Amino acid sequence: MYNYKMTISYDGTRYNGWQRQGNTDNTIQGKLNEIVSKYLDEDVDVAGSGRTDRGVHAKGQVASFKVKKQIDTERFVKEINTYLPLDIRVLDMKEVDERFHARLSALSKTYKYVIDNGEILDVFSRKYAYRFADKLNVEKMRTAARLLLGTNDYISFCGNKHFKKSSIRTVTDIDISEDNGKVIIAYTGDGFLQNMVRIMTGTLIEVGVGKRNVDSMKEIINAKSRDAAGFMAPPEGLFLCEVKY
Amino acid sequence: MYNYKMTISYDGTRYNGWQRQGNTDNTIQGKLNEIVSKYLDEDVDVAGSGRTDRGVHAKGQVASFKVKKQIDTERFVKEINTYLPLDIRVLDMKEVDERFHARLSALSKTYKYVIDNGEILDVFSRKYAYRFADKLNVEKMRTAARLLLGTNDYISFCGNKHFKKSSIRTVTDIDISEDNGKVIIAYTGDGFLQNMVRIMTGTLIEVGVGKRNVDSMKEIINAKSRDAAGFMAPPEGLFLCEVKY
Repeated sequence: MYNYKMTISYDGTRYNGWQRQGNTDNTIQGKLNEIVSKYLDEDVDVAGSGRTDRGVHAKGQVASFKVKKQIDTERFVKEINTYLPLDIRVLDMKEVDERFHARLSALSKTYKYVIDNGEILDVFSRKYAYRFADKLNVEKMRTAARLLLGTNDYISFCGNKHFKKSSIRTVTDIDISEDNGKVIIAYTGDGFLQNMVRIMTGTLIEVGVGKRNVDSMKEIINAKSRDAAGFMAPPEGLFLCEVKY
Repeated sequence: MYNYKMTISYDGTRYNGWQRQGNTDNTIQGKLNEIVSKYLDEDVDVAGSGRTDRGVHAKGQVASFKVKKQIDTERFVKEINTYLPLDIRVLDMKEVDERFHARLSALSKTYKYVIDNGEILDVFSRKYAYRFADKLNVEKMRTAARLLLGTNDYISFCGNKHFKKSSIRTVTDIDISEDNGKVIIAYTGDGFLQNMVRIMTGTLIEVGVGKRNVDSMKEIINAKSRDAAGFMAPPEGLFLCEVKY
């Protein structure tokens, strides 16, 4: 078997997220499985580095799959994009060692969350940013973000109430930048729980508008309860940007 | 009468252009007239700095209108945006001298045309750039662009075959920059004929792929015929960025 690693970009607006849910779903994974299988004339099951929620975007999702026939990767990228819908693009394709798996081999991931915090809504980022009109105190958000770093049990930031596996993760960086009215929060870590980036963003936004103390971050982590954290920011502002191996 | 100047941003995707066409139209001007009139409880006729074609965007369209009652401009901007659709925003509003007219008083305009010339289509700019896959030679386009500058009869670049008024305009700058696979052409001049920026862009693209000589620019101008120029680039890449007074 040959093993391949694809880097993928998608506009998640009209999809029910990454993860395939059946034969009649409308997911990125389902679409890729269907079109890559047809193109290669071989049943392909694409494994993503992780799920992205309904409506979440990707600039650098990674997926791997095994096939019997060897593929001309350069030609594959050119041709597969002519069959894919315009909101999904394969950016890159490489042959990899047979032990490589997009999810299991991932060492770190970077997500970016874009908040449109300008005085007036930016009409051109309606689908690629969360519009939040109240002025955010970015310095306070930065201080709070530092308290969320480290190796912790992040179950308070998990949207799945029935999550049973280990919820310990290492978040190595939360960088908050400002650009023309946008506040961009870049999260890097070895992995993130379901909805974790969106719930952390909602919590940091609550800090930014003074609804929550900077110091309460450690309390939220210690509470080990979803109720302790803030609201879940909507999907349209979130981008999976990079997966490192 | 009081006279006001508004700066407006819009995503032109779902509109039939700026210019009002009747009572059942779907234009930016029609939408503004309707909502501003209702808000001020006074019939308002908003005059734009110029038309934008169906599907063209604006980051800095300017419109002026006269009313009987004086307006609290700061409050107006805040409140009118709550009534306007999310793809139209009033960015700024000022009381101006009664002789001011958004079109007649304009001294110069800047349009930007965005071409997605990256190796792989950018899924996030499908509606805000023209996807053109063949690699453009930007240096050749820059040389050609310089030959289009000056005070000239630009009728060869006019999309309206029945245009009767003076087609002499002064184009002071055509700046071509590159950013992450995008080629951005910024046009500045005292005014532009109908479709002129899109036809100039199509012509420069033909230069960029070697279909047309750099030197032929002067011939196109001298021909005074639409047939001499290149194709008309589509509307989704075009933004009216600034009007100076």
